[in-house]
Amino acid sequence: MHPSSKLLKKIDSPADLKRLGRSELPDLAKEIRKTIVDVVSTSGGHLASSLGAVELGIALHYVFDTPTDKILWDVGHQTYAHKLLTGRRDRFPTLRRHGGLSGFTKRSESPYDAFTTGHSSTSISAGLGIACAKRLKKDTSKVVAVIGDGSLTAGLAYEGLNQTGDTHKDKDLIVILNDNEMSISQNVGALSSLLSRTFSASRLQVMRKEFGEFLKSLPRIGENMYQLAKRSEESFKTFVTPGMLFEAFNFEYFGPIDGHNLDHLIDILNNIKKMDEPVLLHVITKKGKGYRKAEQNPVYFHGVGSFDVDTGICRKSSSTVPSYTDIFGKTMVDLAKENEKVIAVTAAMPEGTGLVPFSKAYPDRFFDVGIAEQHGVTFAAGMASEGFRPVVAIYSTFLQRAYDQIIHDVCIENLPVVFALDRGGIVGEDGPTHHGLFDISFLRTIPNMVVMAPKDENELRHMLATAVAHDGPIALRYPRGRGTGAELDDAFSPIPIGRAEILSHGDDLLILAVGSMVSEAVCAAALLAENHHVQATVVNARFIKPLDRELIGAQARRHRYVLTVEENTVQGGFGSAILELLNDAGIKDVAVRRLGINDQFVEHGPQDLLRGKYQVDASAIINAALEMKDSPGLEFKGASVG
Amino acid sequence: MHPSSKLLKKIDSPADLKRLGRSELPDLAKEIRKTIVDVVSTSGGHLASSLGAVELGIALHYVFDTPTDKILWDVGHQTYAHKLLTGRRDRFPTLRRHGGLSGFTKRSESPYDAFTTGHSSTSISAGLGIACAKRLKKDTSKVVAVIGDGSLTAGLAYEGLNQTGDTHKDKDLIVILNDNEMSISQNVGALSSLLSRTFSASRLQVMRKEFGEFLKSLPRIGENMYQLAKRSEESFKTFVTPGMLFEAFNFEYFGPIDGHNLDHLIDILNNIKKMDEPVLLHVITKKGKGYRKAEQNPVYFHGVGSFDVDTGICRKSSSTVPSYTDIFGKTMVDLAKENEKVIAVTAAMPEGTGLVPFSKAYPDRFFDVGIAEQHGVTFAAGMASEGFRPVVAIYSTFLQRAYDQIIHDVCIENLPVVFALDRGGIVGEDGPTHHGLFDISFLRTIPNMVVMAPKDENELRHMLATAVAHDGPIALRYPRGRGTGAELDDAFSPIPIGRAEILSHGDDLLILAVGSMVSEAVCAAALLAENHHVQATVVNARFIKPLDRELIGAQARRHRYVLTVEENTVQGGFGSAILELLNDAGIKDVAVRRLGINDQFVEHGPQDLLRGKYQVDASAIINAALEMKDSPGLEFKGASVG
Repeated sequence: MHPSSKLLKKIDSPADLKRLGRSELPDLAKEIRKTIVDVVSTSGGHLASSLGAVELGIALHYVFDTPTDKILWDVGHQTYAHKLLTGRRDRFPTLRRHGGLSGFTKRSESPYDAFTTGHSSTSISAGLGIACAKRLKKDTSKVVAVIGDGSLTAGLAYEGLNQTGDTHKDKDLIVILNDNEMSISQNVGALSSLLSRTFSASRLQVMRKEFGEFLKSLPRIGENMYQLAKRSEESFKTFVTPGMLFEAFNFEYFGPIDGHNLDHLIDILNNIKKMDEPVLLHVITKKGKGYRKAEQNPVYFHGVGSFDVDTGICRKSSSTVPSYTDIFGKTMVDLAKENEKVIAVTAAMPEGTGLVPFSKAYPDRFFDVGIAEQHGVTFAAGMASEGFRPVVAIYSTFLQRAYDQIIHDVCIENLPVVFALDRGGIVGEDGPTHHGLFDISFLRTIPNMVVMAPKDENELRHMLATAVAHDGPIALRYPRGRGTGAELDDAFSPIPIGRAEILSHGDDLLILAVGSMVSEAVCAAALLAENHHVQATVVNARFIKPLDRELIGAQARRHRYVLTVEENTVQGGFGSAILELLNDAGIKDVAVRRLGINDQFVEHGPQDLLRGKYQVDASAIINAALEMKDSPGLEFKGASVG
Repeated sequence: MHPSSKLLKKIDSPADLKRLGRSELPDLAKEIRKTIVDVVSTSGGHLASSLGAVELGIALHYVFDTPTDKILWDVGHQTYAHKLLTGRRDRFPTLRRHGGLSGFTKRSESPYDAFTTGHSSTSISAGLGIACAKRLKKDTSKVVAVIGDGSLTAGLAYEGLNQTGDTHKDKDLIVILNDNEMSISQNVGALSSLLSRTFSASRLQVMRKEFGEFLKSLPRIGENMYQLAKRSEESFKTFVTPGMLFEAFNFEYFGPIDGHNLDHLIDILNNIKKMDEPVLLHVITKKGKGYRKAEQNPVYFHGVGSFDVDTGICRKSSSTVPSYTDIFGKTMVDLAKENEKVIAVTAAMPEGTGLVPFSKAYPDRFFDVGIAEQHGVTFAAGMASEGFRPVVAIYSTFLQRAYDQIIHDVCIENLPVVFALDRGGIVGEDGPTHHGLFDISFLRTIPNMVVMAPKDENELRHMLATAVAHDGPIALRYPRGRGTGAELDDAFSPIPIGRAEILSHGDDLLILAVGSMVSEAVCAAALLAENHHVQATVVNARFIKPLDRELIGAQARRHRYVLTVEENTVQGGFGSAILELLNDAGIKDVAVRRLGINDQFVEHGPQDLLRGKYQVDASAIINAALEMKDSPGLEFKGASVG
């Protein structure tokens, strides 16, 4: 706790907040901002969004009766003030640390977190479900969904609006549109330009005034006529502001109001609270509000690592090794130079996916579709059908949203769309909603799909070249974070589809690894040889689908022990594909052990810590190898071991 | 060909159509309707939608230069006229027959089919992709997406509209909203009520007139004032019609116009064709137009089997065995009676999922969310978080759209949502876009999820009772079509989670079957015993996840041959789960063969024919058993055979 937090330190729950006078709230907001900046500057986190929603958090808990009234914070990354006000002040310094507070809302963390979030645009749907449930229970408490303008670009939000405004059943849901004119990056789409018409509301005033003056100026027009005209103008007021969109969905629209003015917020929320119909309150906020560095550069401070509060400069690791993301971005530019058919598609993540250099070099061939993964994939299918090679760069966890489009729009017709899945595997502090632990399983079940994972950033380059040269759907997944430091080849050499490679030879054990686990396997093999006299053959599978049946089959026949390693769930994953291969090839006399995430969601924490805990690292490989060796009835072929 | 089709028989391509005079087109429309009714009355198909889009098909091919200009028919089920006009007239009687024309559009079927469809709401996204591709190629030909009002309720369509209207890049896409005031069933949601305001356009005229009269009636108001008022009214005209929604997305809006008036359609399309900005043309059509039985009952004639043209009566099979769908619907009513927490959620499919009786018996607990599977699942998660037991009834193939919501909104928090997947497995004539061949694979990889498949309609009842009593996410999948004729128990007896059952004992072979394949396995076992002296143990797995490790492990140890059978892809499917189990239990000395769909999309055709062709039936089980028996180096334990 910061020493100056004299108001905040009195608040153990929203009941304490309600005891403060209204005039004290702006000071409380300052204390909260200070605390957020202090903690995030050491822990990292979603700084800009949370700073933008401080007054909103205060006002909502001040007016509503939480947790009986439910507040659903869309995405959940703007909730640091909410967390500080709902009994989590003391634990706040543990934010995003392993065992500490989640960076998002989480039902299991607090009764004040009405819904578990991380992915965008769920709040209206979940809120409507809760509102309908309350209605059935004759519970008259309120439900509030707080959603950003960026999240509104996703179809899920629209589907929720559409059902909420359905006239067949009365709904009672309050939606607060937290409009900061951006999602994670610059916002795109028609909706965004519609919302920016907000600012022409003042122009509307001018127009009206002019119209009135004009009427007055006409000869023989009395006061009556002016009043009449004024009233008729009222009737189309809502149509010119963004209200027209929400009125179309049968929402009662209020706003736009300044989301940093606590008095206005509290007054209007008090009014809205009494209504029993769908209401949309349009609130304008500033990302990063109150911390100048973040106000100036909200994209950079969207999700940030630890930084120096005074300078705003990020405390970067001293490593000069580039990230997979950087190499992907650079390679896209290189490939686009060679091949004019290469197109880049991102879903509101030009920075996160590394596509900014591409967007600058080839603006015509760069498409940011907004937070709209489904559309992004089908859009890419359309482009592919015209002979282009779209590369759809979407984080593994977000591509889950487009599973049907991958099957239905891309794979049935075998269209050449490339899927670049960043953040495949454990992502770290963003936790269970963001780990990319299912992609190997869900992609490899789809006919016509090729699935790859590079062992390092250099192989990523060759795989991307392979992908854009391939005449069908093809995916590559790679982890969050720095590469292995591999040297980068200048020339591209495409990899034959389905060709694995042997990295080391040994008689005792066959390690089949894929993606990020290859370097761990190589490390483990070296240590097994050095410390345990166990000689391992290490294979970099490269392809999960199609597997290199020949190489893997031949190696499996040469070994009695096979260890598969993947940073993915083992249910239906790479190891499972290996079991299918071995079974179908009639290879029976091997003992197989599959390392990977075993049918569970993984909490948040540092990547390395979680990899250790969930047994997807070199130590786990060594331990598994030694356990296999010691299994009753089994023994290694090679030299006797100790 | 019908003898009266004197115009239609001259048309081998749209070039021939263009040679007809405008005055001949209404007769052509009649001939097309007659042909469609004749063929669909014997083949079955999407009658009502296709009858509604006859003039649209004629006008589009009359005005646009297909296939250079691209027409994307959303869903593709309204394209029978389009097919008849684009070189498929002679093959039209093969509609939906195995080896014949698809019931949807399909790129591989015709160059006039710009995109492969089946699922809804893809046309705007794919169309925009094609339009952007053309722009990059400096190709000025046009792209037209034809989308129904029902399809517009899906978020994917909205995501597409949003990017099309993005002002950062010029787009040139024509969207035709084919508004027949329904999707498959009665349409729901705010959008639907907005579109129906169309008809109040005439009321708007009345209002305007009244306002004018009122102004005139005021003393000392001259003609000038009336003109002024009239002009100011013009300025809000577009806001009151549905145009306001599309104008908000930066579309130039035209309509609504009568979609059966060829002259109007052709005139306006000729005008629109010259524009180079996003245009939305709102067309009103009638489902079933021209065939009175279908006009009167468009829901029944949405997707219909063969029927008698004169009476409109469906030629039902003489079987009195109810369908899985019927039993599911009945059971939902039974369970809702016992448990007031049971809720039903459908995505625009009350009839298809069998939920009509529930919707009548418990209207307050029935939620049709429209074509919005993502929202339906997240909405259900919200209800579950308030203590309800929502049963989300969505066809297997459409649940693919909600894969992320299942993971993110339901399973991470382990919420008790029940997923009832109708049409699991091969669905028949709807073909590759509709077969439910991935659900076992994609559901079983998700932590916390329980996955079941009943062996017959009686077990479906018990499984559904099991599901609503289970405190976590749980899914059951069952096939399209009639049940096995099993007798239905009156009382519910929930099945312990993860408990399989042994249906027959034999020493030679272990058959592990799931869902629809259990009865095939029982049949196969009887024939193997009778004709081949092979004695099989047949296990009804019931649960794909969690598997009954104990029973299956014990049985596998007793046998040398294991056959797994599932109506699902074998990549990551049930058989793959069995391989994982056997491997993890260290059971090595069995030969396993997995029957199922092997990494391919399955074409359309009768269910039984396809099951035979893709080896998921009793014959395939028998053949596989006999092949295993004859494998070199293997022999059955039991009595000598052959």
